[in-house]
Amino acid sequence: MSFTLTVLGSSSALPTATTNPTAHLLKADERFFLIDCGEGTQMQLRRNHVKIQRIHHVFISHLHGDHYFGLIGLITTMQLLGRVKTLHIYSPPGLKAIIELQRRPYNHYENGDGNEIENTSSDKTSKKEDDYFPIIFHELETRKNTVIFDDNKISVETIPLKHRIPCCGFLFREKPKLRKILPEMILKHKISIEQIQKIKLGENLQKEDGTIITNEEITLPALDSESYAFCSDTRFNESIIPIIKGVDLLYHEATFLHELEHLAKKTAHSTALQAATIAMKAEVKQLIIGHFSARYKNKDVLLNEAKTVFENTVVAEEGKTYSPTNQ
Amino acid sequence: MSFTLTVLGSSSALPTATTNPTAHLLKADERFFLIDCGEGTQMQLRRNHVKIQRIHHVFISHLHGDHYFGLIGLITTMQLLGRVKTLHIYSPPGLKAIIELQRRPYNHYENGDGNEIENTSSDKTSKKEDDYFPIIFHELETRKNTVIFDDNKISVETIPLKHRIPCCGFLFREKPKLRKILPEMILKHKISIEQIQKIKLGENLQKEDGTIITNEEITLPALDSESYAFCSDTRFNESIIPIIKGVDLLYHEATFLHELEHLAKKTAHSTALQAATIAMKAEVKQLIIGHFSARYKNKDVLLNEAKTVFENTVVAEEGKTYSPTNQ
Repeated sequence: MSFTLTVLGSSSALPTATTNPTAHLLKADERFFLIDCGEGTQMQLRRNHVKIQRIHHVFISHLHGDHYFGLIGLITTMQLLGRVKTLHIYSPPGLKAIIELQRRPYNHYENGDGNEIENTSSDKTSKKEDDYFPIIFHELETRKNTVIFDDNKISVETIPLKHRIPCCGFLFREKPKLRKILPEMILKHKISIEQIQKIKLGENLQKEDGTIITNEEITLPALDSESYAFCSDTRFNESIIPIIKGVDLLYHEATFLHELEHLAKKTAHSTALQAATIAMKAEVKQLIIGHFSARYKNKDVLLNEAKTVFENTVVAEEGKTYSPTNQ
Repeated sequence: MSFTLTVLGSSSALPTATTNPTAHLLKADERFFLIDCGEGTQMQLRRNHVKIQRIHHVFISHLHGDHYFGLIGLITTMQLLGRVKTLHIYSPPGLKAIIELQRRPYNHYENGDGNEIENTSSDKTSKKEDDYFPIIFHELETRKNTVIFDDNKISVETIPLKHRIPCCGFLFREKPKLRKILPEMILKHKISIEQIQKIKLGENLQKEDGTIITNEEITLPALDSESYAFCSDTRFNESIIPIIKGVDLLYHEATFLHELEHLAKKTAHSTALQAATIAMKAEVKQLIIGHFSARYKNKDVLLNEAKTVFENTVVAEEGKTYSPTNQ
């Protein structure tokens, strides 16, 4: 499996004594993508034994505090631990000013009485601004489905959501994989390195004597590419269905039971039934629901409601890891 | 007992999987004072069953993140729960801009497409700026011992500390208490309400027939007034001793063992031995040490070092409550 998703925080705006606000960590082909970063995320990363310096890309869906208040703490810890590598942060506009204001060096006496503290010049935390590791802020236009990250293995695109403020989800897609050549066939047919690349892409093998060996005889099919869609926070919004069609894993917020649909509408959130309806219509393989209102002590009522519409639903549990193939 | 101190967070800059950054809650004569507010403090308050709306005064020692990153989350939760009462925040300069930037309403579409969300006008979180509960920021001059709070029962003054940035501790003192009249004496001597107030202040009772009843005959001595001094973060600094002389409880940071004194000096922190030396010279009744470097898995080494100088030392344990009389 190429994708594993660890839920770090699952609550909605009011954290409880036992649950944390939204944060997900997607490991995808050895890349670590942090998605939302509510207060306490750095401690949740620690509890889940994640090496924080391996995170190079953070995606923030919107600027309600339960989705980003943990970011400045995580950045500060990365700095204290000596980070030098660039961090990329993708979010709606506004976050850059918030982070940069708190990254400013409050850590020197601006009024010139620094003499009272000796010998702090080499202290790691007494930095000038240009000593900080670089952060590149990518401001998102949240109302258009746009590719915002693309490398040789993964692409990430925004999913326009409808919330009270600019907000988008994120769709992570693995690129199509290559077919796998059977090792014994390389020896048997003396296949060259050049030929191997073509065969992995699906070509047949033409031998020197003109014989054609079909691709199927010497390869295994490519593994399926995996995909994960993160949708929080949003009211019920069917316009996302074509974007997330057929994904392996869909996380969709389910703040309320459907009996509180009026409250969901008013606060621009979804009910468990609505989350499941999106999953069903988008024909996803599995649905994870979370962002539950603190009023629900027992999540089973939300799970059961979702399952009436979409059977393959699970509840986002903090510290649990999900993947397209392990369910 | 009038004072109880609950330690909510005890770690230094790098939180671990099991400890939180600095935050203390002092309950003093029914007032709730929050002292420092590292990331995760609101969850620690919840775990310790503190009613957050009873907090009206927050004291921030300095603007390193491990002492204030939890404040915006706490404020946001107070708002979501419908707070209307004023919150007073005491800190060195800089915090107001940080909090106000994050309290701004990111929660509406500034570019006029609000129509896509219906019926949000009465939503609690869709506030204009003047809908927020009031916060009064008190900017502190950290280099002078100054009274910053004073009511009929409690006063709070700053303790100038020496750290890498402007930083002060806080000294909480209960005002002198009144003597307690024995209830049976009120009946026996038919003492009037006017006379009661004078007797509580220490006056004798002059009866209508001219008889004098001495104060000692009809009262119990006033209970001792209690005091708590919070000192974090600071290098070893004996100039605070006259200010904290004889306090009941002293919290003093002890980031390192004394074998790392050079590191303490470089980072403007204290060793356990230095914290105990301050306690001993200031003749406090009890010392609580905390803000330990994450390198110390076992706190006993720090405790034992402090005890070589000042026997009545305890370790700050998260979730534990301390008071001048329960040790």
